Amino acid sequence: MKAIVLFAHGSRDPHWHLPMVAVKERIAHSHPDALVACAYLELSTPDLATAVASFSSQGVTDIRVVPMFLGVGKHVRHDLPLMMDELKSQYPDIHFECMQAVGEHPELLDLLAKIAWA
Amino acid sequence: MKAIVLFAHGSRDPHWHLPMVAVKERIAHSHPDALVACAYLELSTPDLATAVASFSSQGVTDIRVVPMFLGVGKHVRHDLPLMMDELKSQYPDIHFECMQAVGEHPELLDLLAKIAWA
Repeated sequence: MKAIVLFAHGSRDPHWHLPMVAVKERIAHSHPDALVACAYLELSTPDLATAVASFSSQGVTDIRVVPMFLGVGKHVRHDLPLMMDELKSQYPDIHFECMQAVGEHPELLDLLAKIAWA
Repeated sequence: MKAIVLFAHGSRDPHWHLPMVAVKERIAHSHPDALVACAYLELSTPDLATAVASFSSQGVTDIRVVPMFLGVGKHVRHDLPLMMDELKSQYPDIHFECMQAVGEHPELLDLLAKIAWA
């Protein structure tokens, strides 16, 4: 059983999360059986460990983590790999895949350029 | 003369900016005459006021500000409108257009869902 974690920065402002939730809902709409959760680095809940623990208790065997970051800095290049290492050692029976940050995805960069120019 | 400012959060990490610069370069590649700059809320330069001052000195009469934020919180809903108000009163001869944050753009949300699922 596979699951996706949309991993974003987090914020005290509840409006901040709406785009993350909207992406989650889009996936759930297209793939009604999909297991998808949002998780946050700081200021918001759940954190990544809690989201993974929840999926683990549901018998999930494969977890893809999608870093929902436009800028690719310390959080993505340093903090997240450390968290992934910890999860891998804590859940040796789960296969984890950490994708590149969305801000590194060429199609997303193309779309951002199109949106900015349109 | 029109110009676009890609307005992002900013970071101490020089890698953080690469996606913003990549979007700027995509626009410049598709539209070689385009006036495009990146500007940052904090931790990076130039700030929005400096980018606008530079365009103003080049005779730009229309400036579109594109908030390069996935999460739509205090920075986009509070800080940026205040900055826009200040710029409008400082440059009454420039027409400013502040777009919705990229994280509110339906096509971007669709693509994020597609990337996460693919």
